[in-house]
Amino acid sequence: MTRHNTPVESVIFSGRKIPAYNLLSEAALSRIEDQADWILREIGVEFHGDATALELLAAAGAKINGKRVRFEPGHARELCATSPSEFQLHGRDPTRTVTLGGDNVVLMPGYGSPFVSDLKNGRRYATLKDFHNFVKLAYSTPALHHSGGTVVEPTDVPVNKRHLDMMLAHLTLSAKPFMGSVTAPERARDSIEMARLVFGRDFMDRNAVMQANINVNSPLIYDDTMTRALRIYAEANQCVCISPAIFAGAMGPLSPAAVAAQTLAEAMVGIALSQLVQPGCPVVFGSFHSSMNLRTGALTFGSPEANMTTMALTQLGRRLGVPVRSGGGQITSSNAPDGQAMQDSAGALWSTLLSGAHQVWHAAGWLEGGLVMSYEKFILDLDHCGAMLKLLQGFDTDDESFGRDAYRETGPGQNFLSTSHTLRHYTTANFEPRISDAGPYETWSENGSLRADQRATAQWRQMLDSYQQPEMKPGLAVALEDFVSERKAAMPDEWY
Amino acid sequence: MTRHNTPVESVIFSGRKIPAYNLLSEAALSRIEDQADWILREIGVEFHGDATALELLAAAGAKINGKRVRFEPGHARELCATSPSEFQLHGRDPTRTVTLGGDNVVLMPGYGSPFVSDLKNGRRYATLKDFHNFVKLAYSTPALHHSGGTVVEPTDVPVNKRHLDMMLAHLTLSAKPFMGSVTAPERARDSIEMARLVFGRDFMDRNAVMQANINVNSPLIYDDTMTRALRIYAEANQCVCISPAIFAGAMGPLSPAAVAAQTLAEAMVGIALSQLVQPGCPVVFGSFHSSMNLRTGALTFGSPEANMTTMALTQLGRRLGVPVRSGGGQITSSNAPDGQAMQDSAGALWSTLLSGAHQVWHAAGWLEGGLVMSYEKFILDLDHCGAMLKLLQGFDTDDESFGRDAYRETGPGQNFLSTSHTLRHYTTANFEPRISDAGPYETWSENGSLRADQRATAQWRQMLDSYQQPEMKPGLAVALEDFVSERKAAMPDEWY
Repeated sequence: MTRHNTPVESVIFSGRKIPAYNLLSEAALSRIEDQADWILREIGVEFHGDATALELLAAAGAKINGKRVRFEPGHARELCATSPSEFQLHGRDPTRTVTLGGDNVVLMPGYGSPFVSDLKNGRRYATLKDFHNFVKLAYSTPALHHSGGTVVEPTDVPVNKRHLDMMLAHLTLSAKPFMGSVTAPERARDSIEMARLVFGRDFMDRNAVMQANINVNSPLIYDDTMTRALRIYAEANQCVCISPAIFAGAMGPLSPAAVAAQTLAEAMVGIALSQLVQPGCPVVFGSFHSSMNLRTGALTFGSPEANMTTMALTQLGRRLGVPVRSGGGQITSSNAPDGQAMQDSAGALWSTLLSGAHQVWHAAGWLEGGLVMSYEKFILDLDHCGAMLKLLQGFDTDDESFGRDAYRETGPGQNFLSTSHTLRHYTTANFEPRISDAGPYETWSENGSLRADQRATAQWRQMLDSYQQPEMKPGLAVALEDFVSERKAAMPDEWY
Repeated sequence: MTRHNTPVESVIFSGRKIPAYNLLSEAALSRIEDQADWILREIGVEFHGDATALELLAAAGAKINGKRVRFEPGHARELCATSPSEFQLHGRDPTRTVTLGGDNVVLMPGYGSPFVSDLKNGRRYATLKDFHNFVKLAYSTPALHHSGGTVVEPTDVPVNKRHLDMMLAHLTLSAKPFMGSVTAPERARDSIEMARLVFGRDFMDRNAVMQANINVNSPLIYDDTMTRALRIYAEANQCVCISPAIFAGAMGPLSPAAVAAQTLAEAMVGIALSQLVQPGCPVVFGSFHSSMNLRTGALTFGSPEANMTTMALTQLGRRLGVPVRSGGGQITSSNAPDGQAMQDSAGALWSTLLSGAHQVWHAAGWLEGGLVMSYEKFILDLDHCGAMLKLLQGFDTDDESFGRDAYRETGPGQNFLSTSHTLRHYTTANFEPRISDAGPYETWSENGSLRADQRATAQWRQMLDSYQQPEMKPGLAVALEDFVSERKAAMPDEWY
């Protein structure tokens, strides 16, 4: 019996067809927006070590006092107004181009894990080989639309050279959109230079092909590393994603309302800066937030409080008129790809997608609060991504969907399996996951009583075995490799 | 470090505070309702072996042709109009009384499994001891509000005597509302008689204290076993829940739209019958439906198609003005309490609760498509029930929630953990699950690298160890036991 999957590839770019869920009332949203304005007027945001950023903000009318920047109510929001509500992020294969904003949904793999794990080899530091593997896996699945960024930390490469190998991998092993480096100005510039080798400078001056994640050093600080990277990408008219990062109770007050307001305040300031650098620069309203066990200090993911905050932030971002990167994704604090991991992850993805987020990081692989990228969890998450993409399509209520002819062929008590209506539709009616097992217990036992995570091992191996590298113009791969070699040769290794 | 849980007990009866998600537009809902009317006019529903039911329906104006009953468009809906949109289901401990309808949510354990499993003793036929255990567990947790019905099949008790032991358990080991037997008229009568010993006939003539699940023999057949039970409960003014049972593609066409329409059609007929027996009788619009792998015939649960159908049915039931028992719950086809089980279950519960269902069966324990009640899955599910109950409460956006004083105490870059705002709220801010582990990998490894299901074993044992039987008036337990003994002595054992 061959497996058959609904062609989710076609789902991806046809967009959401079910309404977004609105958790909060108009009144509640206004109160949160007012609190964001209060934060920006009364407390303000600090910019550390970037005089240019301060000058841009001062020229736009913000009140500057040393590093501290304050805004009159409504001012930061006004400065965001030139950012596009919807834009394309181009893949080097045009069929992989995605749209951010509107009714579109872009799912991405996990980001930033220093460790990987799989059931055979256990937990270990991530290497460039793992990085390559996850780029290949993300390219191979129709359930993800984006190659991601630091899908894992290639810890066997010197810190100051990792961005070169990571860019090379995204540009050659995948043809989906990707993220560039932000960890130092020269790394940001290298990332853009490498993309220009592939896409051309003219094209990139007019079109976004890559994203940069600008993390706020929450609470209320923009570091110069981040603002310089922001300015470099914005000047190149590439997409910046502004991501406040708040664990409720540590980097902000403990309540969902407060975290939502502070995230909005911090994000509006970064979005404003991007628009001052380059009006109309494509921007994403990002967030990363979660809850904590406030007695132990342990970080928790997929909690009801975090999920509510996720839903609130999507609403707030949509009101701001900027594509929203949700703070959710398939995230968990679990140390294994077990029931907890999938319970946490499923809830986080439901809150993310039902609320109408446009871009979802960490949609596959994340384990241990992000410390680990798990090969098996990645596969389990893909199944759920596919299922949710199917759900976002809703269902038809046209005449054909009701199958009146099937009732005429059968009648009370009869089976519909052999009706012509069923035969017309049975191959495409249902999303079919790859790992879920609906077979009988006896068969499952005879096959070794494998849990879902154990069944996932064969799947990621098979995907890597059958991976096919996307084509690239002759000479281009060489040019990219030459760029990497030259840049590497020009720098001594740095390991921290 | 002691564990602390948000007191979800208080959550339970304070009701949903976030809006219900409306998957379908007004136009789509109308089309499904029209299709339900088409089914009832063109195809009709059969009543097998119950002349009284046919007479009641004929007298109300339905068209009868042998067993087949047809309705003019809108007629079945009209006959449902006397059913209450909201009513109480009384516990013998009044603090356990629940309300069905409105903004209330009532969660229940799984129903009907012939097998149980736990990690130590494996998979085996369920016994009365297991039945007692699950009644005790459901009574002990604030995450469930109802004792359920056939929480497992007590297979060591003769079939014709099981209802007596099950009723005795619900009435003595729990004080939450429960379900009575429907599998034969005399068992239904016994169930009501036993409840009357506890609640009094007068009270029960005016108030519902129990529910009966009336399964439709879908497609489009009501068997006499079910309609007789329906009439017995409705005559006693106890709650009937009408549950069509449709696997898409087998007992109806394969599309969500068709399953929703057929479920609505079948349910309206049963609800109408209950109102003809006893106008104003409390009724629940139930459903049980799921999807199948249409190539293998395997039943699948938590699929996107089933979850969409769940959401649609909740909307349709709310429009009908009757409390809705969702077809969801924490259901899965997985053979183990693993990642698949929790991914399926979490999605099914999200679709159930976000869409606004009032009553949720199978909220805890269900495994293997309902063949198995798993002790460990029960515990994992309870965590998710608690989390979702917290989520249904939404969050405050009052002045206190924004923590302005915390910003004044701190400032950019500072930690909020020791602010007075955090100290005022940290013990109650977050729902804390019992099984989820957010601790570091090293500690987790040192403790044996236990998966979530493995950690759950200690929890259900501890809950059974610390179970405290609710008090009962002296003599009442004896009266119940005498009733059971007399009825058992009056019948030879029947094992099928």
